[in-house]
Amino acid sequence: MDKEKLQTYLSEGKEAVDRVLKSYIPSVKCEPSLMYEAIRYSLFAGGKRLRPILCLAACDAVGGRREAALPFAAAIEMIHTYSLVHDDLPSMDNDAYRRGRLTNHKVFGEGIAILVGDALLTSAFTLIVEKGCLGSVSPKKVLAVMLELGSSSGSAGLVGGQLADLQSQGKKEMDMEKLLYIHQHKTGALIRASVRIGGMLGGAPQRRLAQLTRYGEKVGLAFQIADDLLDLEGEEKEMGKSVGQDQAKEKWTYPRLAGREQAKKEARRLVDAAVEEIKTLGPEADPLRQLANYMIERRK
Amino acid sequence: MDKEKLQTYLSEGKEAVDRVLKSYIPSVKCEPSLMYEAIRYSLFAGGKRLRPILCLAACDAVGGRREAALPFAAAIEMIHTYSLVHDDLPSMDNDAYRRGRLTNHKVFGEGIAILVGDALLTSAFTLIVEKGCLGSVSPKKVLAVMLELGSSSGSAGLVGGQLADLQSQGKKEMDMEKLLYIHQHKTGALIRASVRIGGMLGGAPQRRLAQLTRYGEKVGLAFQIADDLLDLEGEEKEMGKSVGQDQAKEKWTYPRLAGREQAKKEARRLVDAAVEEIKTLGPEADPLRQLANYMIERRK
Repeated sequence: MDKEKLQTYLSEGKEAVDRVLKSYIPSVKCEPSLMYEAIRYSLFAGGKRLRPILCLAACDAVGGRREAALPFAAAIEMIHTYSLVHDDLPSMDNDAYRRGRLTNHKVFGEGIAILVGDALLTSAFTLIVEKGCLGSVSPKKVLAVMLELGSSSGSAGLVGGQLADLQSQGKKEMDMEKLLYIHQHKTGALIRASVRIGGMLGGAPQRRLAQLTRYGEKVGLAFQIADDLLDLEGEEKEMGKSVGQDQAKEKWTYPRLAGREQAKKEARRLVDAAVEEIKTLGPEADPLRQLANYMIERRK
Repeated sequence: MDKEKLQTYLSEGKEAVDRVLKSYIPSVKCEPSLMYEAIRYSLFAGGKRLRPILCLAACDAVGGRREAALPFAAAIEMIHTYSLVHDDLPSMDNDAYRRGRLTNHKVFGEGIAILVGDALLTSAFTLIVEKGCLGSVSPKKVLAVMLELGSSSGSAGLVGGQLADLQSQGKKEMDMEKLLYIHQHKTGALIRASVRIGGMLGGAPQRRLAQLTRYGEKVGLAFQIADDLLDLEGEEKEMGKSVGQDQAKEKWTYPRLAGREQAKKEARRLVDAAVEEIKTLGPEADPLRQLANYMIERRK
């Protein structure tokens, strides 16, 4: 799979996910209209849909039907978006820009931004209930996959990681163990779950699922390290948000703790190891292999 | 059923719900410990568990096994608690006290209070997935009930109502139609769903469910009017939060719009009408009948 094919794969995946999201979120003509305007502002802000695409790619990789994975992929993106909206709030990371536009609370106010997050999180679950059983997915399987998503998003996953991150801000010291805990929960858990969910819906047997899980863990950490390197090195237009913010806030990152060169090496090592994990999969897993590389090579 | 029996019914219901909640939320010894400390602070703050008890009572009323309804009743309380924690935030209703204690963000800070709400909302769904199928409830039914809960809590229910309430704050004008929209969504939707969910899990046929739905709608509005009257008339120790706050914030309420006497009459009329809706149910529905009265007669 060459770079051009990967681009096609990425844009087709994004379009498929966006179709589900657009059809599920009521139009701004519905009441309360401000609610849907504010939800759509953040949900359709130009995100690359990396998590849902990883989910679809994992489903493809094990020979599954991606129609089965699509509603779950869209729900993953809703959860990701809600977490960004809440993380950007003044009492959290206090970010004014994301993807080159003002953050939700800067446009609509803090109260509404909190509600946007709450609504998106709730909708992720109702979307799965309403659309997850289409096709050949049984109610029992829908529940199992929902548990995977819920566990990775809640206090033992994403939310717990954000809390640990919040606690670490402004601290004078940080060790690698604590930093990895934050990364593995705040960003890692949902990326890992995205891959696992694609595998589960694609019908992967346990052994395959274990491989995909390890792939997801490695790619998730590589992604975070690459993101922190981009923040350190990138140009404003490339990130679409103010860069150098982590430094300005004295935020603890892998590059800050281990040094920039070591961080680059580690990201590359993780990606290679992730690809190694899925070496016994056939050519259907090529997008997953390319995506691992894309996670640390992307520029925008 | 006399008043003493109702008190026993209420305390037994609360104990049953609390047992589920306590066993599901990790102890404060688990990591991240601050997360579970902050969740437990609000979840076990002395709430009366009215919504879950309504759910159990509706299940009882149609002759169902309440064990089936219990995990869902606990999930309803989690959603209710998350909504209180978020509503109390400075950018929303900005309340410093609730149930006689400092609100979550006053103790733990805004960032953590937002995360507590996020974690509770997520846990409500995972609790249902993990515990909802115990007993004779099929996965298909679990999904149907989950949709009821999700729809009543999201942008078309509770969250949408809170948004409309937020928009109305400080407005010079308010009409009854708008006020009823806020009440029916912000508080009414979850109360209605609590009753419906109990009925669904109790195996109520469509006609019964329609009766329970109308009962829930009327009781939900009566509850809100009574709550606003308590705020207007109550003493600080009785409400456990600063009273007269609605007035101080110039918040629009039913008593403010229609007058205190008319509000009392309307609450009584709604309760009587709610009881009338379920008149063809047998003595198993007595707790539900008593609860309707309790909703407007409670003092604390």
